[in-house]
Amino acid sequence: MAIRAGIINVTGYAGAELLKILWHHPEVEVVSVTGRSAAGKQLPEVLPHLSRIDLPITETVEGSVDVAFSALPSGASAEALLPIVNGGAKAIDIAADFRMHDVAEYERAYKTVHPAPHLVEKAVYGLPEIHRQAISSTSLVANPGCYAEASILGLAPAVKEGIVADDIIVDAKSGISGAGRGGLSASTLDHFAEADENVVAYGLEGHGHQPEIAQELGELREASQARVTFIPHRIPMVRGIMATCYASLLDSSINREEVLELYRDFYAGEPFVRVTSQPPQTKHTSGTNNCLVHPTVDVKAGKLVVVSCMDNLINGAAGQAVQNMNLMFGLDETAALDLLALNP
Amino acid sequence: MAIRAGIINVTGYAGAELLKILWHHPEVEVVSVTGRSAAGKQLPEVLPHLSRIDLPITETVEGSVDVAFSALPSGASAEALLPIVNGGAKAIDIAADFRMHDVAEYERAYKTVHPAPHLVEKAVYGLPEIHRQAISSTSLVANPGCYAEASILGLAPAVKEGIVADDIIVDAKSGISGAGRGGLSASTLDHFAEADENVVAYGLEGHGHQPEIAQELGELREASQARVTFIPHRIPMVRGIMATCYASLLDSSINREEVLELYRDFYAGEPFVRVTSQPPQTKHTSGTNNCLVHPTVDVKAGKLVVVSCMDNLINGAAGQAVQNMNLMFGLDETAALDLLALNP
Amino acid sequence: MAIRAGIINVTGYAGAELLKILWHHPEVEVVSVTGRSAAGKQLPEVLPHLSRIDLPITETVEGSVDVAFSALPSGASAEALLPIVNGGAKAIDIAADFRMHDVAEYERAYKTVHPAPHLVEKAVYGLPEIHRQAISSTSLVANPGCYAEASILGLAPAVKEGIVADDIIVDAKSGISGAGRGGLSASTLDHFAEADENVVAYGLEGHGHQPEIAQELGELREASQARVTFIPHRIPMVRGIMATCYASLLDSSINREEVLELYRDFYAGEPFVRVTSQPPQTKHTSGTNNCLVHPTVDVKAGKLVVVSCMDNLINGAAGQAVQNMNLMFGLDETAALDLLALNP
Amino acid sequence: MAIRAGIINVTGYAGAELLKILWHHPEVEVVSVTGRSAAGKQLPEVLPHLSRIDLPITETVEGSVDVAFSALPSGASAEALLPIVNGGAKAIDIAADFRMHDVAEYERAYKTVHPAPHLVEKAVYGLPEIHRQAISSTSLVANPGCYAEASILGLAPAVKEGIVADDIIVDAKSGISGAGRGGLSASTLDHFAEADENVVAYGLEGHGHQPEIAQELGELREASQARVTFIPHRIPMVRGIMATCYASLLDSSINREEVLELYRDFYAGEPFVRVTSQPPQTKHTSGTNNCLVHPTVDVKAGKLVVVSCMDNLINGAAGQAVQNMNLMFGLDETAALDLLALNP
Repeated sequence: MAIRAGIINVTGYAGAELLKILWHHPEVEVVSVTGRSAAGKQLPEVLPHLSRIDLPITETVEGSVDVAFSALPSGASAEALLPIVNGGAKAIDIAADFRMHDVAEYERAYKTVHPAPHLVEKAVYGLPEIHRQAISSTSLVANPGCYAEASILGLAPAVKEGIVADDIIVDAKSGISGAGRGGLSASTLDHFAEADENVVAYGLEGHGHQPEIAQELGELREASQARVTFIPHRIPMVRGIMATCYASLLDSSINREEVLELYRDFYAGEPFVRVTSQPPQTKHTSGTNNCLVHPTVDVKAGKLVVVSCMDNLINGAAGQAVQNMNLMFGLDETAALDLLALNP
Repeated sequence: MAIRAGIINVTGYAGAELLKILWHHPEVEVVSVTGRSAAGKQLPEVLPHLSRIDLPITETVEGSVDVAFSALPSGASAEALLPIVNGGAKAIDIAADFRMHDVAEYERAYKTVHPAPHLVEKAVYGLPEIHRQAISSTSLVANPGCYAEASILGLAPAVKEGIVADDIIVDAKSGISGAGRGGLSASTLDHFAEADENVVAYGLEGHGHQPEIAQELGELREASQARVTFIPHRIPMVRGIMATCYASLLDSSINREEVLELYRDFYAGEPFVRVTSQPPQTKHTSGTNNCLVHPTVDVKAGKLVVVSCMDNLINGAAGQAVQNMNLMFGLDETAALDLLALNP
Repeated sequence: MAIRAGIINVTGYAGAELLKILWHHPEVEVVSVTGRSAAGKQLPEVLPHLSRIDLPITETVEGSVDVAFSALPSGASAEALLPIVNGGAKAIDIAADFRMHDVAEYERAYKTVHPAPHLVEKAVYGLPEIHRQAISSTSLVANPGCYAEASILGLAPAVKEGIVADDIIVDAKSGISGAGRGGLSASTLDHFAEADENVVAYGLEGHGHQPEIAQELGELREASQARVTFIPHRIPMVRGIMATCYASLLDSSINREEVLELYRDFYAGEPFVRVTSQPPQTKHTSGTNNCLVHPTVDVKAGKLVVVSCMDNLINGAAGQAVQNMNLMFGLDETAALDLLALNP
Repeated sequence: MAIRAGIINVTGYAGAELLKILWHHPEVEVVSVTGRSAAGKQLPEVLPHLSRIDLPITETVEGSVDVAFSALPSGASAEALLPIVNGGAKAIDIAADFRMHDVAEYERAYKTVHPAPHLVEKAVYGLPEIHRQAISSTSLVANPGCYAEASILGLAPAVKEGIVADDIIVDAKSGISGAGRGGLSASTLDHFAEADENVVAYGLEGHGHQPEIAQELGELREASQARVTFIPHRIPMVRGIMATCYASLLDSSINREEVLELYRDFYAGEPFVRVTSQPPQTKHTSGTNNCLVHPTVDVKAGKLVVVSCMDNLINGAAGQAVQNMNLMFGLDETAALDLLALNP
């Protein structure tokens, strides 16, 4: 019998992508989708590119579900998932509400009061490459932020093996869809005429994904703290995210091949992480759940440099959520995620 | 009487931009322009956007000139400038041939034999914010590389004042025009269908602008060496370059306002560098000779972060060359460069 | 003594472009600029790319002006120009309010009540290639719509000479800046993620520029009416507009060269219209006041095909307005408009 | 037992897309793929976005196949398919070699000598909406050109029902991928810096898809000839094609609703053509085999206007080829083509 799934806020970019993936999932039936301003309409009116899927958009999840995904903005998301969790269904939060173990840190980063702090310790950070076991046995998953995921996957092997110093720099570049369909309210920076032919650094006073990266890298490294400088940039493309990661090598004699080997060992058997010997391109991941990771060494400066990239809406959001769901239900981890890139 | 100028390789992006700027220069007459495959044609056939300028394209500079600019690729450029220099005219090289003081370093970086090593010590690195005096009194200027210029302008105040440690990271993003009109030979990476909706890191094994940055920052800092990790990225826009620079602060008590002040002092009076209190956008510089520099501090990590940007074809190439020419001839430094941005 | 100019709604794309052009005008001083939500701020806060121009943004034109330009939306524009006209200054309306001779037609097209119908017959349609004499002697100019201007310039020679039948089709393509900085309210179609990698036809139920084209072409052709089908498309670029015009040739023996000749004769001496023998590209006009017109013949089908293009914000708006101002004040028609294209 | 398929020239955009679709086809095994310069390499070296598919690229189809697809350029394609056809396998030509019934017309349009004229009458034009029966029983299919397909699907209902006059205008807009991976040889028009922020009309002296459109529309209309003016434009996006079609209505009393009804009837039951009541966007078809068709009426001018769009690499090439293969082998016509759009 099919798993009955609900999608909260299907009308955003992550929600729509999730619906698209689940639509082809052999074990899942999407039985309820919700929206905010779009509640009361049929899905094809709001998402014409999914016009084949004729579901009503409701205000809250209707009927009984085995799992609900929330693609609401942070803050609103935890609140909407509360009744799901209380009702005994599994829940996957694509927003940031359950990512930080430290509620105070979350509240600082997102400038909000946490609506369900008692659930935080129940939640597992949904990065299978690090927490596969825990994900498989929880009923509440916090799906990683896209920037955080690209950064952590780029750095985890080096940090876990202890080959780099504490100071880490992540310079990230994201397509505009990362800002969401609602866009950058109170600004015109998502306007095509402003965003095209432009690159802008932002979040220089602090970005919500920074503590997420620091938390996860910190856990990988005992008795020591990662100090992460994280600067995101918005670049004129729709999809795709790249994190270029820099850290000082503790042993300057380690060479490119050894680093490559170390990364290949770390990710051996992972279905979606591919360690590449050439610098990867975001376009090679477009429409897929893959993460490409390319580690190299700046020999003269004694630095590890890792380029990591993915499709921000799939591996950075909806695809990752489905992978987590697969794990939570004991399904084949790659079900519905055997996607080939849209290229060119 | 007007200064008689020649442009070698006018058909490339930098050469065409140079012609455009000089066309409106009150003191200059462009008397000769050269091309390679386009030699023998009239300019409007090859550059329809400059159809008003009806000059013949010749193989070599014809007639007598007071100054010649070369926009040829590195290697070919020095060779083409030799007769100009020998003939006693002033020369400005937009290519890399005279940028490095160390010929061996140049030859390693560009994998070529220097065609005029005896001229190297005569050349001045054409960055007025650092070498204005020397530029004014030389007859051979090496115009900076676009990446190098954005990086050096971003870091010079901090390095000169000695507030940062030796290890420096520059993560740079450039529009595709930086690859030149000839494009990325032996690849299809400049094809619209490949470059659009894509970001790619390159030069991870070493990029020619890295030693240029290291040389200039090294000279600013006595008795110590800058160790510069430089990683460029190609992003899907035509014009614009951004360098995001990272360095450890030696005194972690220095704050944002102090750094901003230090940068404002350093660039006080500079006609084209503007220190901004908000993160700058490349689009704000499009079509201008301006460089926008925004320094800030990652307090938690004790890092200086500087975002620096410009139009790669103007301040990063042709406009910078005209500024240098203005200095070499004792003209108003801003002549023909009072350009307002094309926006949006 | 300089002409004192005011710009109403300087914060929109056309208003900002106008300020940029007038800033370099040798005979004009911009003494007052207005905004709506931005009133009370200084210009550099709102338009950082024009940060050199430190004017206060006010609610209404302040001080005495010799000429005012309005870049307000249609409807609001006529209202704001009323006091200017009543005060005896010259007025140039970049909006649509004074373009139609028939007030009822205007009110149908723009679904509004005309705020100053008594001024309509005073106004001259500001297309110098057709109405140069009248523009020179009026004090109220209606600047053409960008689509209308590209279409009329593409078709005027053929219609005036009577070589085509009444039925005319104009298929137009515009960059997104045409939708204005405020964008496409009540929709997300100007969002980068929606507009990029997309093309959309719109206005299929009727577009405001259609009656404008029909009026002007109709006047060129006596005793007969142009029946114009006009379909605009939004394409993923910032600037540039192209009109591809189709009409049946009355005499099927007329050939390409004859049509080219006819067009060259019609536009002989025009400073900004260039008849090209090759299909033009919008990019060749970017940043200029030029209109490129390429007429050809589909011999088999007996059709005239004309491709016409320009920079929608310059020749399609601000540059055209300055050209009109130059004529109204008896200045050199090309003053401040000697612009070379930004390319690539 | 699986159908054994070969792909000739898998390295082009259409070939790679075809491989991607067939990879998920439940009844097909791709057993051989060929390339030209890439022969001898493994597929992941050349197409990193399909790195999961580890096939050797050979010079010619190896082993026995049940069907071969050719994605070679026109001319070379027929030659490469000859041994396939002679060997008794089914063949689908994505190039133009078998589209025209009149060999002389083909040779004029493509400026080449047909390498296999004797096969032309054997071939069926592969547009299922018109020739489904014939496709099902042939062994040689000529896959339609992307422009032709969008145009014919936009016009077929009106032409077949006889509601429009003979003179037809198609103004088409295509993304740059339509020019192919090899691009526009002998030009730089596919260079990102040239193609971005630009629109260009081309083929004004005649385009190969024009006679294809005329042939197919002509066959739909007895005793009368369609006179088709076809002007393609290249716009700055990767994928997507739109044809805006114009024709005079013979009975001016027919209204929008009636036309919509007529189109809905014509395409009733078609799995991939969707008649829309709103103007469609290319982006809604990206990554799918769908064609969206929106007919409307310009009442004042008595014109039918139809906007038709699709993904040029899927419904305009590879997807259409798979649909044809499904028909030729008696499979479910939609097998492997149940694709949802990549959006945004």
